[in-house]
Order: sequence, then C-alpha cells, then structure tokens
Amino acid sequence: MCANALAKAGVNVRIVDQRADKIPAGQADGIQPRTIEVFQSYGLADRLLKEGNHMHMAAFYNPGPNGIQLTDRVPDVTAPTARYPFEVTLHQGAIEAMFLDSMKSMGVEVSRPIVPTELSLNEDLVGDPEAYAARVVLTHLDPPKGKSATEIVHAKFVVGTDGAHSWVRKRFDIAMEGSQTEYVWGVVDMIPQTDFPDIRNKSVIHSENGTCMVIPRESDIVRLYIQLEGRDAVDASSGRIDKARMGPEKLLEVASKSFHPYTFQKPEKFDWWTIYIIGQRVASKYSVADCVFIAGDACHTHSPKAGQGMNASMNDTHNLAWKLAFVLRGWAGLSLLKTYELERRNYAQDLINFDVQWAHLFSGKHRTELNQDGISHEDFLKVFQTFGGFTSGIGIRYEESAIVNYGAQPCARNVLIGQRMPPQVLIRAADFRPFELQDLLPSNALFKLLVFTGDSTEMLEASLDPLIKKYGHALQVITIVSKRWPGFSLADIPAVLRPHWSRVFCDEKDARGTQGGDAYATFGIDPIAGAFVSVRPDGYVGMLAPLGSPGALASYFDSFMQ
Amino acid sequence: MCANALAKAGVNVRIVDQRADKIPAGQADGIQPRTIEVFQSYGLADRLLKEGNHMHMAAFYNPGPNGIQLTDRVPDVTAPTARYPFEVTLHQGAIEAMFLDSMKSMGVEVSRPIVPTELSLNEDLVGDPEAYAARVVLTHLDPPKGKSATEIVHAKFVVGTDGAHSWVRKRFDIAMEGSQTEYVWGVVDMIPQTDFPDIRNKSVIHSENGTCMVIPRESDIVRLYIQLEGRDAVDASSGRIDKARMGPEKLLEVASKSFHPYTFQKPEKFDWWTIYIIGQRVASKYSVADCVFIAGDACHTHSPKAGQGMNASMNDTHNLAWKLAFVLRGWAGLSLLKTYELERRNYAQDLINFDVQWAHLFSGKHRTELNQDGISHEDFLKVFQTFGGFTSGIGIRYEESAIVNYGAQPCARNVLIGQRMPPQVLIRAADFRPFELQDLLPSNALFKLLVFTGDSTEMLEASLDPLIKKYGHALQVITIVSKRWPGFSLADIPAVLRPHWSRVFCDEKDARGTQGGDAYATFGIDPIAGAFVSVRPDGYVGMLAPLGSPGALASYFDSFMQ
Repeated sequence: MCANALAKAGVNVRIVDQRADKIPAGQADGIQPRTIEVFQSYGLADRLLKEGNHMHMAAFYNPGPNGIQLTDRVPDVTAPTARYPFEVTLHQGAIEAMFLDSMKSMGVEVSRPIVPTELSLNEDLVGDPEAYAARVVLTHLDPPKGKSATEIVHAKFVVGTDGAHSWVRKRFDIAMEGSQTEYVWGVVDMIPQTDFPDIRNKSVIHSENGTCMVIPRESDIVRLYIQLEGRDAVDASSGRIDKARMGPEKLLEVASKSFHPYTFQKPEKFDWWTIYIIGQRVASKYSVADCVFIAGDACHTHSPKAGQGMNASMNDTHNLAWKLAFVLRGWAGLSLLKTYELERRNYAQDLINFDVQWAHLFSGKHRTELNQDGISHEDFLKVFQTFGGFTSGIGIRYEESAIVNYGAQPCARNVLIGQRMPPQVLIRAADFRPFELQDLLPSNALFKLLVFTGDSTEMLEASLDPLIKKYGHALQVITIVSKRWPGFSLADIPAVLRPHWSRVFCDEKDARGTQGGDAYATFGIDPIAGAFVSVRPDGYVGMLAPLGSPGALASYFDSFMQ
Repeated sequence: MCANALAKAGVNVRIVDQRADKIPAGQADGIQPRTIEVFQSYGLADRLLKEGNHMHMAAFYNPGPNGIQLTDRVPDVTAPTARYPFEVTLHQGAIEAMFLDSMKSMGVEVSRPIVPTELSLNEDLVGDPEAYAARVVLTHLDPPKGKSATEIVHAKFVVGTDGAHSWVRKRFDIAMEGSQTEYVWGVVDMIPQTDFPDIRNKSVIHSENGTCMVIPRESDIVRLYIQLEGRDAVDASSGRIDKARMGPEKLLEVASKSFHPYTFQKPEKFDWWTIYIIGQRVASKYSVADCVFIAGDACHTHSPKAGQGMNASMNDTHNLAWKLAFVLRGWAGLSLLKTYELERRNYAQDLINFDVQWAHLFSGKHRTELNQDGISHEDFLKVFQTFGGFTSGIGIRYEESAIVNYGAQPCARNVLIGQRMPPQVLIRAADFRPFELQDLLPSNALFKLLVFTGDSTEMLEASLDPLIKKYGHALQVITIVSKRWPGFSLADIPAVLRPHWSRVFCDEKDARGTQGGDAYATFGIDPIAGAFVSVRPDGYVGMLAPLGSPGALASYFDSFMQ
C-alpha cells in the first residue's frame, strides 16, 4: 500500500522485504468496506471484488438442547453509507499480488530477500525535506554470486512496515504499550466437508464446548478461528505458543466439539494454520524526527476477531503517503507529517479499546439459566451492531488538526468533517452519465474541491479565482449544481468551475430514475446556498465553507501549504 | 467475435486478415445495449465500459427562427429491460484490441496480411463434421524471406467475415439482394471546438441547410455524420463516391451550415473521415453445404444511422459459434447449423426494413408551415422510440425452430421464448450474495437449465435425473427457489439441483433491500408451480416447460442433440 501509493504520487520509492517470495497463502484475509473503497480509489477494487469472496451475512449459533443452534442472522455490515455493504475475504498473497502488479506497471518492484541492518539519521540534514537525511544499510540475504551482500541507501524518508516484530521500531527504541491477553486462538484454512448450514457466512459459534468463528473465503476455502484453552498450546515455562503441541488436525478436532451436532470430515489438506496469543498494544510513537515512520503491525497489534488487522495497516500508509508526497513536492511543510501519528495512533487506540470489549465478549461464556453472569446473544449483537461503523472502517473520524477543520459543519450537516466522503450518484451535466462521487475522488495525491453551487454560479468566478491561482496545482475542482435551472447551459458555467466539460455534475436522477438525485438533501446542503467541501487526497473531508466565504478555504490551505 | 468465441469453446481455430495491422482509428464505433450484454457474457464488458464513452441521452434539434434549436431530449435507450441503458461508443480498433487480447490469452493470434485465393469443398466429405471438407489456399501478402507465399489449410468449417466486398461470398456466387439508396453521407472524427450544447449527447440535427448527427466518443472525440447532396461527392458517370471531390474540411463546412447559430472551429486534426452511399442489401444465403458460412458485412449492408452495423455483425457469429462447437463436439447434428441462416438472415431483413424507414425519416425534409408533407419531430420521435427495442438489440426475437420452441410460453409469461434472457438480481442461498442472473449465463458453449422450483424441490430429483444423465455434459443447472421456505436448508435441495453450493439462488431482496426480489413476478412464473427455462449458450431462451413435464425438456434436446 505504501510503496504503491507513493509510486502513484510520482515519488521515487525503494521497497525491500525479508521474504524471498510473496506470501503464498494464509495470513490476514479480511477486507472491510472502507478498505474496498480505498482499493477502488487506487483502481484496484475490480480485481479485489472479482477474486475475493463476498461476505454479506453474519450468523450466530448458541447452545441448544442438542448442541448448537442458529439464534440469528444479521447483515455483516451495518454501516448505512457503506458503498460496498459486505466484507471481501481473500488470502493475503492474492492481495499482495494486486499491489505488486500495480507497482510493476509503474516500474517499482520489491527487492528480496533483504533486511535493514543499520539505520541512522544525519542530524544536520533532518528537517530539510530536500536532504537525504537517512542512511540505511541493507543486507541482501541471497546476494548474486560475487556481489556484495550490503548496500547503502540514502533516503529522504524511511517507512518501516516491518510487522509486529519491527526492526525499525526496535532500532529507535519505540515502546509497545499495552498487554498480552489470556486468549489463545488457533486458525485453520481448508476446503471443508460439512453439513453446517452457514459455512459460507461469517458465523460466530458459542457452544458449551468452546467458541469458534467461520470466515468463508475464495475458491471454497473456509477459515476457522478456534478458541483454545491456554494450557493446550502454551509452553508454561516461557508463556509462549508452542506450535509443536498442536497441529491443524488437533485444531479441527477441538472445533468439531463446538460444532456438534454438525460435523466436519477431515479435509484432504490444510491450506494454512497457526496459533497465537492476542496482544493488545500500540507503539508509543509513530515517527522519529519527521523522517522515519512506522506503520501497520509495527505500530499496533490486536485480535483478528473483528477482521481489522490488514485494514488498519493498509489505511495507515494510505493516510501517510499523500502527506509525504506533498512534503516531497515542496507543497507542504514537514508539520503536515505530524498529522499521521495524530490521526492513526488515536485510531489504533480506539481499535484496541474496541478489541478489549470484543475479545471479552467473544471468549466469554454464554449466558445460561445456571450462569446468569454469562454473555447473552443480545449483548453480543448489540456490540456487533453498535461498532458496525467502526469495524467497517466507514465511521472512522479524524480529529481536528491543520488538515481537519471542524468549524463549518452546518454547511453540510451530513458530510461529517474528518470522515471519508460518502458515496453518492451524480449525473454529469454534459452527457447525463451517472457517476459515483467517490470515483471522482481517486487517490491521486491531490485535494478535491467540491463546489456545490446551489442554484447559481454567479459570483463564484471572482471569489474562487485567487484560490485557484494560489493552490490550483494541488487541487481539482468538481462542480455540482443543484439542478439544471431554467436555461441551464454548460457554456454559462464560469471557467474556474469548468476546467473540462467532464467536471460539472447535476444533482438529478438518471434517465431511468433508478439512481442519483437528492445529493444536496442527503448531504444536508442547502439547495440555494450551496457549500464548499474540501476533500483530502485520501478521501477524508478536510473542511467545509459557505460559498460566501472563499477566504475560509484560503485560510485552510494556508495553514499547511507553503 | 467469431474466432474468440470458438477459441473459448475449445475449437482449434485459425484466423487470417488481409490487413497488415489492426485498425488504428475510425470505422464502426457504436455498441448497443444487447451487445454490451454479449460482451459481458464473454468477460469483455468491464474493459469496454472503462474505455468507451457512454451515450445516455439523445437530443433533437430542428429549425427555429434563428437557425436550429433544441426540440427535445429523450433517453437514448428506451428498452425497459436493458441491463445497460446506454450505448457505448469507441473506435473499432479499441474494440478489436479487446478480442485480440482475449484470443491471445487462449493462444490464438491473427495471421496477417493474408488473403484466401482458393476455396473448394470436397463433395465426398461434406456432411461429415469429422472430416476436413474445405480446402483453402491462403496467400501471404508479405511472406517472410525465402518462405512460400501460399499455404494450404484443410478445415472442417470456414467462416467468411470478410466484409461488404466478401471474397468468400463472391467465390460461391452468393447474390446480395436489395438496392442502393440515393443517400450520401460524410463522416468526420475530431475533437471539436464548439459552443453546441449537446456535443456530448447523441444529437440529430434537422436544419434548413441539411441533416447531421453527432456521436460523442472516447477521449473528447466526436463523430459527425453529415448528409450530402449526391452531386457533391458522386462521380456522375460511374455513380460511385469520388473522395477526391471532398475532404474533411469541406465536410465540416457543410455541417457548420446545419449547426447555425452554433459554430465549429477548425480542429487541429481530423482523426478519420469517409464518404459513402447507403446500400440496403442482404445476402441470398448465409452458407454453402453447411460447411462454409458468411457473416457480418459479408451478409448485410445498411445505413450506419441507427448504429447497428458492428452489432449486427458481431451478433451473427455470437449466434453461429456455439452451434459450430456443438457440431464439432459431436453433440448435435449438422442440421443445427441451419438455424444460423434462419435466425440471422431474418434479423438482417428486419434490420433493412427498419433502415428503409429510418433513412427516409433521417434524410427527409423537416415539416414546416409551407411544407406540410415534411417530417415532424413527433413522427421522428415515434419511430425512434417504437424501434427502441429493435435498435438496442434487446427486442430481437428468433423464430421457431428446433432450438426455439414457442410452445409453453404461459409457464413464464414475461420470459419471451426466442428473446435473450432478461437481467434479474437473485440472492445466492448459501451466502446471501446478490448475483445478476445474466452473469450466471456466460458464453461458455453450454446450455443453462434454470429450474424455478416454486415452493418445493420434492419430486424434481426423480424427474430431472434422466435428463441430466443424458444431456448433463451440455447443460448447467441453476436452481432458483421462490423463497427460503420455513425450515429451508441448502442440504435439503436434491443433488441434481445442487451440483455445487454456489448454484442455488433465492428470489429475495439483498440485505439492504435495494436490489433483487420479485424474479418470479417479473418473469410471470407462478411462485408455487415454478417452471423450467432452458437458455441457449448464446443467452437466448430456447424453451419453457412446466415442472411436471420434464419430458418436454427431453424432447426439446432430443430434437437437435445426438
């Protein structure tokens, strides 16, 4: 995600990986609705949707008189504005392959197997984004014959996306704050032979014999998460997982007890398996001297139960990449980079707070007549649905900063400042073609200025011209008129609002009346007064302003642009 | 289309072209809604929709007091069941490239530049689909140094898709029936500089100074069709077009008069241009000895005004390819091939009958106070909309034959036998994922048996098993239950209706309630009684039958399968 986004922004990027090859199977596999939107913004969603399994429904099983029974089925995604109201599940190797192919088309390939062995900052150069302040020694684990195993790279910036045991993080003694839980989970990937009815839905199984989760995947594969008794898989003396104590057959055996009366036949093979203890930790800081950054598992570890891991990680660098690009282009000062830690570390802490509750519910005992302190299905469902906005990624909201100005929320009551711009179908003025607004906001490392003109475009030319003269290099204007007013003609739209015929839209339904319309109403924008909506390059709403206050726009950009 | 469809069906195919390279620009450029559905069935629609311009609206301009003025705008596509309610416009080279890339992925490439110079049939072998009855001599126009310019190919079947001047057609003295019209048209492709408001819509311009049509295209390009006075471009002695008499500048000059008061500046360049006389002709037959076939412009020529040319041609071989595959596999007898001419020649005749009316309206004088015999906008619009089903390709209906059995229409009143299966969103039983029914009907050279089970699947196992035993190699079963009845479980669906978990669907809305549902009602199928719908490999409905009459299914397949 990081290297691809930087390459797309025109940044000269080098990416190294200690693995000799891309991941073949297993690992993370759940892509949340907001992350699908992000993939779409990079032009990667078509392939993701084609290759991945789509998970629409969540089923809940609880103890009944003869083993487990279905208690409820609910939509897996409850966030009402999610453009893709489902999760995609696909093994990590296939997801990596999309990024590798995308990068390759831009001339960037991963160098492997390579590890960093030294990383130092030149204190005289730090703070100058033009200077190569970081010196990285790379060690090639499998150097070509006769070639040196070490290589020195001078970089303007370094991003450590090197996992839970991050070398970069350790190099700078960045602490992980939080604790290990007592929860131990096993994971198996396989093509199941079973009579369990919800094997192709996300299923949460609470039984008298333990807790399991079913995650269906591509090509008939299913992943089972199986809660284990710590003593079965943990070495008592070290407190660490001992994978020798338990193989996938044993894991499936444990699961089978929970699924009774449904059965699993032993599969032909297991595609992947693992056992882990849930740790819930966040790095104490995300950057060193605004020059070295860490992202992904290097910054946060938590349970995979809510399917957040890969999503949290990819969205870290989706957040960081455009900021680096702006600094490298000389458009913004280094202080812009501080918003990365602000936004993503707070999010990671929220994630871990959620995870604590979720893991407790997940691993807890089911409420029964004898155990009234147990967790009822209603408790569970309430948390599942209350946190739907959070787990889908749709509800994530960045707090106030130079690039998030909460001031003028009433201009567009339902376009929440700090959240991602919601989807909405608009009709293009010139040719009546319906467009999804989110598709007008690609991750191209440019701001988008949405001008909801209301019922007139008079006055806007004079008021917007100075802003476009100053910051036009960094933003794209998209014009959305409230309707084709009497005598509407594209030719009458001022040039500043119409850099190309394709950039003017109307808030109308399509010719069939099946999509589009009501954008102003949905967004809470007055159809006469209109509004400015400034969308950040990562798709998040940076600020709003009344059409009469172009000065507010200028002040916003002045605060971080140079 | 022909080679790609055959290759996809596993047929060993050789394709030759007299052109040294693929077409770079110009030529045909309009893809109709039904053809987009066909592209989708071959997995080619995503790219088509991405690369092409989408034409949603048609605008009509007529004489006003100061030059032309807008009379009306209407949706360009009026067929209510069109899955894609618009036309795609894209130059022919880009469309060819999709087929070339698709074929390349199957190991088939076009040999060029090559022309056939001899073609003979061995009368002893004709009628035996296992035999190589056709002998074709190919002449390489640019043979590698030292290699022979001629090559002999022995083929089981030959398809001449070699255009209006078809060598294959002439070789067998197949006559073109019909006549030349008096209509002469010029065409220019360019990026226009104009203040004409509907330059990005299909626009039909009737002016006191002539008739024009605007067809917007990819990358800001626009095509203008300009009606000419015959004397300007035709050599009086030969009656043929003389392109030396008129260049693109002159064509644009003629057009500009029609567009007054709107203006066109001279563009930097013209991407393509041509002049032609409309001929309206159909070949007297489409095949020779069920061994040699002609298709596309080799069979029919007509005006391009209704955007049918490329569509009629591609759908010829979409119709033919699966039939050839069935015969080559030994599944069906040679008589199946006779339905190609039956279906496609009748269609071509309908097309020309339509074209006669359309070209007359198009080229005729506008009705004015002084000329009450002229054509009113209302006349024009009526024909435009009446024939919307036909011009969109959606309404095309094949007549009764061995593969189209009109008998049991009441089983599914709105699934018209002989028409293409209409789109409908269904929900997959196992995972609640919404699917477009048309996406379950890929062009994979297999029949699809849609089993609308009604409210029960009892009895179906016994009744369907014999059919599947006999013809299961040639058809795929798709099960559509009317709803999840109380106690519904996928495990209870009989094996013959559930060859894989992914093949059972429910007539329900998706989790959000925004798509799906009402399939039985929309199709006019009784939700208790159900129905069989047999869909041909090309997506056309072959026959219907009540669930109680599996024998009718068997008789249908018996009539052409062997």
